[in-house]
Parts: sequence; C-alpha cells; structure tokens
Amino acid sequence: MNAVSPDQPRGVFAAVLTPLTRSLEPDTKRFVAHCRWLLENGCDGLAPLGTTGEANSLSVGQRRALIEATAGSGVPMERCIFGSGSCALADAVEVTRAAVLAGAAGALLLPPFYYKNPTEDGLFAFFSEVIQRVGDARLRLYLYHFPQLSTVPITAGLIARLMAAYPGTIAGLKDSSGDWSNSANLLKQFPGFGLFSGSEEFLLANLRAGGVGCISATTNVTAPLAQAVYRAWQEPDADRLQKTLTEVRMVLQGYPAQAALKQVMSALTHDPAWLEILPPNRPLAAAQASELIARLTALPQMAPLMGQSQAA
Amino acid sequence: MNAVSPDQPRGVFAAVLTPLTRSLEPDTKRFVAHCRWLLENGCDGLAPLGTTGEANSLSVGQRRALIEATAGSGVPMERCIFGSGSCALADAVEVTRAAVLAGAAGALLLPPFYYKNPTEDGLFAFFSEVIQRVGDARLRLYLYHFPQLSTVPITAGLIARLMAAYPGTIAGLKDSSGDWSNSANLLKQFPGFGLFSGSEEFLLANLRAGGVGCISATTNVTAPLAQAVYRAWQEPDADRLQKTLTEVRMVLQGYPAQAALKQVMSALTHDPAWLEILPPNRPLAAAQASELIARLTALPQMAPLMGQSQAA
Repeated sequence: MNAVSPDQPRGVFAAVLTPLTRSLEPDTKRFVAHCRWLLENGCDGLAPLGTTGEANSLSVGQRRALIEATAGSGVPMERCIFGSGSCALADAVEVTRAAVLAGAAGALLLPPFYYKNPTEDGLFAFFSEVIQRVGDARLRLYLYHFPQLSTVPITAGLIARLMAAYPGTIAGLKDSSGDWSNSANLLKQFPGFGLFSGSEEFLLANLRAGGVGCISATTNVTAPLAQAVYRAWQEPDADRLQKTLTEVRMVLQGYPAQAALKQVMSALTHDPAWLEILPPNRPLAAAQASELIARLTALPQMAPLMGQSQAA
Repeated sequence: MNAVSPDQPRGVFAAVLTPLTRSLEPDTKRFVAHCRWLLENGCDGLAPLGTTGEANSLSVGQRRALIEATAGSGVPMERCIFGSGSCALADAVEVTRAAVLAGAAGALLLPPFYYKNPTEDGLFAFFSEVIQRVGDARLRLYLYHFPQLSTVPITAGLIARLMAAYPGTIAGLKDSSGDWSNSANLLKQFPGFGLFSGSEEFLLANLRAGGVGCISATTNVTAPLAQAVYRAWQEPDADRLQKTLTEVRMVLQGYPAQAALKQVMSALTHDPAWLEILPPNRPLAAAQASELIARLTALPQMAPLMGQSQAA
C-alpha cells in the first residue's frame, strides 16, 4: 500500500535505556551520553521512551522534558523514534506532539493498555484521535505491537483501516511479539510497511522479507554485532553474522530486560548509578548479575565490548 | 492487625462514572450533579476516578482538576475515596497527594500495571515510594485488587508487608476479582481490614465476614437496592434483599460496564451527553442499548428508578 520511502528510518535501533538519578528522575546527562555512545557504536537510530526506557513508569512531564532535552543536546532527531504510548488519550497526544515538535523521525505508539479486549473500533478511535489531535503532517506513526505487555494486539485489520484513513502518517510497526510469522504475514499484506522487528534475533529474516530493521532492548549492548548483520544482509556471510548476534541475544533475553541491560551498562561504564530503576522493576540480585556478566564475557563476539569493561 | 476505626468509610459506594464533554474532557458540572444524585439515592460514599470512571483514560491533569473541582463544589470529601492509580510513580504520587489535600477519606491505588509479573519486592517498592513521597499522615490508602484489568494481583503477602510497614496508612482493599473466596481469606487473615467488595453481589457476604461494604460500578444504578441490603444486613430480610439486588447486578454485568452504565444514565436523565466515552471504550450499539434498557425496565425492583425515566 505504501511505497518504501528512501528517507524512511532503517537499520539497527536501540530501545534506549533511561538512566535515573537516585531520586528516580530521568538523568538527562547520562541519557544523552548513552544516546551518543549508541550512535557511535553500531546504532543507526534510537528509540527512547519505550518499554526498555521505562516510559510507562515515567510521567508525561518527565517524558516531554527528556524529549526536549535530547533534542536540545544535539542528538540527531531525524534518527530518533520516541515512544509516546499511554492509556490516556490526552497523554498520548501530548507526548506524540512533543516528539513531532522536536523534529523526531517518528513516534512509536502503544495501544491503550488498561481496558482489556477493546474492540477494533475502539482502538481505531484511539489512534485516530491521537493523529487528529496532534494534527501535524510531519507525524510518522509507528504502531507498537507487544501483546505480552500491552495485552492488546495490533491486528492486520486495524493496520489496514489506519493506513487507509491516514496513509501519510502510518509509517510502520514494531513487532515485539517474538512471533516471526506475525511479522512475515504483515510484510506480505503491507509491502513497503516500515516494519521493525522487536528482537535482533529476527533482523536478517526481517530485512529479507522487506522489513526495515530492528528496534530492540538488547541492542543497547549488541548494536555492533547487529550492525554487522545489517551491513552484510545481502552478502554470503549474513547467516553466520546473524548466528553470532543471536547467541548474545539468547543470553540476554533470559533476564528481565531493563534490569539486565542496566547491569551491563553499569559494568561497562563502571558507574553504579546505572542500576537505578523505577518500581515495579527491580535491579538484578547480586548472584544473577554476576552470572550474566560472566556469561557475556565468555562469548568471544562480546570481547570487544566487555573488554572495554575489563580494561578500563 | 488493624482495629476497626469507627470513622472508617463504610457502606455502599459507587465507582462514579465520569461524564465527558463532546471533546472528551471531564464534564465537571454533570459529574458533580451525578455525585449529589448518588449520595441522595442510596450511596454512603463515592469512589470517583476508578476503572468505571475511565481514570486510566484521563491524564493526571484532568484527574487532579476533577478532584479539586469536586472538593470545591461542596461534595463531602469525607465520603470520597478517589482512584489514584497509574503505571508511573510520579503520576500515582501526584493524584494520591491531590486526594489527600482535598480532604478525601481515602485513595484507591492500583498496582503499576504495564510490566507483567512484577516481584513482590517491586510492588512493595512502588507502594512504599507513593506513601513516602506523599508523606502525609492523613493518607488512607486502599489497595485495588482487579487482576482481570491490572494483570497484577495484590497478594496477602504484599498486604501483610505493607500493613507492617505503614500500619496507619494501609486502610483496606477493593476486591474486584469477582472471587468471593479471595475476600473471605483476606478478612480471615486481616481482621478489621477495610475490605470493600468490588461487586454488590457480595455485599451481604462481605458484611457478614467483617468487610465494610462495596465499591461497585453498577451501584451507579443499583445504590437504592444496595442500601436496603446495607441497612438490613443483620435483619432476617437480608438474604431476600440481597437476591433482589443481585438480580439487577446480573443483568448489568453482561454488558461492558462503562458503556452500559452511561447508557442507563442517559436514559434516566434524557441526556445524550452521557453517552460520550473515551476510547478504547465505545458506546453500546443501538440494539444492545435497547435490550439493556428493556431488561432493566422489566425488573420490578427497578421500577422506582426506571419509572423516573418513563415518567419524565
């Protein structure tokens, strides 16, 4: 339905972690430094304020302030897709609008996730209201399919209705279902759709099927390996590179994502402040943290990254 | 553990609907009028801004404004328990504080409901942070157990930890699980706990087991019948009155709560504005609406209320 736009966001995106102060406010300085580090270490783009970024544990004011501070810091907004989801219509509008006004490449919007089993009409009404209230032709909206956490799937029927009603606005979808067949079906049904896999495990498969890349929690750590897959996806070496990447993903995804990735960043930067996390998420227990770092360090493909930690 | 306080909120509470304007803002004038009508028609107290009140579809600013406007209108705050739940710590703190500052009898707090399978430690940390950040000895907190919507249960283990840490603050729980055995077990384990049933179906059972009343969506409509049970719960007639009440509840609970109750209020007040609802909830379809009104009108015990509609 949509033609692939040459300036459509593509490639390896990290669902950026949100470092926090001791009083559990977003730590803007550490956040901007982390964004820069990711862009210098394998990320084509950034997706802050998603599930990994603990956005739903942050107020709208905290999220808006983080978007504005990031834009003001010089992080390239054309490489940023900000999460803007909320159960509350007014909140989703406010964060989505802030992303557009900051010049972001897109906004990644969850369905409203409190009421269960909403109708397709109800979801269409929610997304429509957000788009109409933001009322800005620059908006590029990515739908966020993560039924394990949102409990509300983004179905093909809903996508078709939204694309028909807002063809210039509905830009793609992040598929965090972990079910590759869902991505494959969507790409068949919507050629040119800006589909990001929610896991780098499916990066190569997604690119081969016409998708645009991945937006993943674990690419906070695996981005250099994911970038190697992205660059070489049409080369003979691609499957081997994907296997190397997937090995790391498999280790990481055995742990609670936010806590595990903050633990790794704390180890890499020797900065205990990285361990601050908003409830109900909790830091890893000490034994679990040691085990995770040991398992990552044991992987040869992680030596360049984990070596930073050992050497520093 | 807690002694029953004589001024503890008790009786029949309505989870108050939130009338909305055409632009989907809370309609303060209609809301205050509805609060007064409920207090004059069988309600001992009010629980605005819960699931029925579409609170999670409203921004924190909209919720605060509604609390402040209600307090300013003269609705008796000592009879109000405001919902104050949010996934975001800062939001839960802000709404809970607004309820305390308004002089409310309590705040009804959901667990953070985006991240799934949080640990008990993580939930304890969330509730602790809210209580400590509000930092006001007047706070009376009711825990909101509604696993079908929040996906996160309030377990007896969590309640025990919170009561031990904050004995003067943890006042009770609203049990919306629909599982009477859960309420019965909690009342055995925590004698004197301010336990409200989430359905008037269990009002009599809850009072007999030591609970304090009900906070229910459907008491927006059934309050006079529920009040009859509450007044007579130690009388020989109590079981018959409960049966009469339950018959009405059974009809209503076959429909989506927010839409159905707004439909009934629209019929009673001849005011189509009552049908406005925030997405993802949707109004009842016309056929469903007619069926519901016909079924309620056919119940003899609803004649006094539905007669208002017929006669007006």
